[in-house]
Amino acid sequence: MRLDVWFSPVGIGPADVQGRTIFVIDVLRATTTMCAALHHGARALIPVASTEEALRLAQTIGSADVLLAGEKNCLRIPGFALGNSPLEMTEPVVKGKTIIVTTTNGTKALLAAQGAATVYVAAAANLSAAAERAREALAQQRDVVILCCGRETAFGLDDAYSAGRLAAAALGGPKPRKGLNDAAIASLDLVRRYGDNWERPLSYSRAGRELRRLGFGDDVRDAARPDAYPVLPQFHERRVTIAPQSQPQPAPPPQPQPQPS
Amino acid sequence: MRLDVWFSPVGIGPADVQGRTIFVIDVLRATTTMCAALHHGARALIPVASTEEALRLAQTIGSADVLLAGEKNCLRIPGFALGNSPLEMTEPVVKGKTIIVTTTNGTKALLAAQGAATVYVAAAANLSAAAERAREALAQQRDVVILCCGRETAFGLDDAYSAGRLAAAALGGPKPRKGLNDAAIASLDLVRRYGDNWERPLSYSRAGRELRRLGFGDDVRDAARPDAYPVLPQFHERRVTIAPQSQPQPAPPPQPQPQPS
Repeated sequence: MRLDVWFSPVGIGPADVQGRTIFVIDVLRATTTMCAALHHGARALIPVASTEEALRLAQTIGSADVLLAGEKNCLRIPGFALGNSPLEMTEPVVKGKTIIVTTTNGTKALLAAQGAATVYVAAAANLSAAAERAREALAQQRDVVILCCGRETAFGLDDAYSAGRLAAAALGGPKPRKGLNDAAIASLDLVRRYGDNWERPLSYSRAGRELRRLGFGDDVRDAARPDAYPVLPQFHERRVTIAPQSQPQPAPPPQPQPQPS
Repeated sequence: MRLDVWFSPVGIGPADVQGRTIFVIDVLRATTTMCAALHHGARALIPVASTEEALRLAQTIGSADVLLAGEKNCLRIPGFALGNSPLEMTEPVVKGKTIIVTTTNGTKALLAAQGAATVYVAAAANLSAAAERAREALAQQRDVVILCCGRETAFGLDDAYSAGRLAAAALGGPKPRKGLNDAAIASLDLVRRYGDNWERPLSYSRAGRELRRLGFGDDVRDAARPDAYPVLPQFHERRVTIAPQSQPQPAPPPQPQPQPS
């Protein structure tokens, strides 16, 4: 078993991600927002690295079913239909739409993870769905990575705690064991430190404090709700869509049952 | 007050360090070893980035008072007089010597910190001396950074916990407060999690486990001893030497004494 947490995508190259099953977390707010959009019927999200690329791609697709979404320094990009708030992604707005999205950190991490065996999107909003898939991958002896988007190039408490929650849910508890890297151990330590209340570490984090200061306190509360948007998004061929059902594994051979004494 | 922890030197540029007071930690083992060498009378250490540069520099200096020290993947570089163990840095070996040192992570972080206002070397071995200087810097409204060398390019539990201990000692306790970045908050969380026993997080860390596996368990125990080598090394003009005494600050105005009742 091998489960790594990476606190930031900085310095990650194609060789690092190859063959791995990666869960990308940007809980405030990009991956939460993606879960909300797909849960409410969006067809797909296309993450891009810049405003210019978003505009170019929208023009290329040229369909009425395309929406532009994105933030720079937490605020909606001028001219875009949507910002980066999960609360904007309501069914009337997003159902059937393809959303081109650019965010400061989340998009960068997804693009850095390209080339992995599989890339999923995780947040509090889809904890159980992500943990179930991570458990399956570990059971299949796959190398699992939880990739935090972090704060610009640095460590973000919000994502690190969320990584710990996902790791704990996948492992069946926050007790460290063999096969974890140091960041995974530390993220489980954060879960022991803050307990079950997801909002607490989000509010302590710089991202959380900045969002509150800018009037997005409701977003922080929304991003802290476990299983609020219970879908499992997958990033594949540059698009984020709902992941296909996992392949059922052949049942393990029957174990001899202990005889009642 | 501003106290940041950085979990890795990856992505740090000259603009990030400029004007700051930086404490570099590579507790297993580079910065511990530097404290041991200077405490036992070494004249200076010169960190370099590669074996080749070490050999070239030794030839340039050409003195009998020069020693080569360094490790690659924890093991002494063939032909070098010393590895990277604090226990090798005894007075008979190092007194009066200039030591050219190359290590996997520690050297890189020191070189990344070049250009800061001041760069100190910290470890468990000099906790009190480093904390006192950090307190002074904070009192003088300087931006303080604790820079962890980390594990190759990634987070190391050993350095992160040590950063938390230094931050807690500088701040007067592990309680988070304003002016800390997310990594500083998390490093204080690790101090609450592991308590005072420095050897515990060092032993859990991948660096600690690898050193034990290679027969360097004594080094891990030695690196976990607070104030074992109570010197304050400073990195300046490419050399690590004992830092000059801090400038005494003007005494605060006398406070009115409470009258005995």
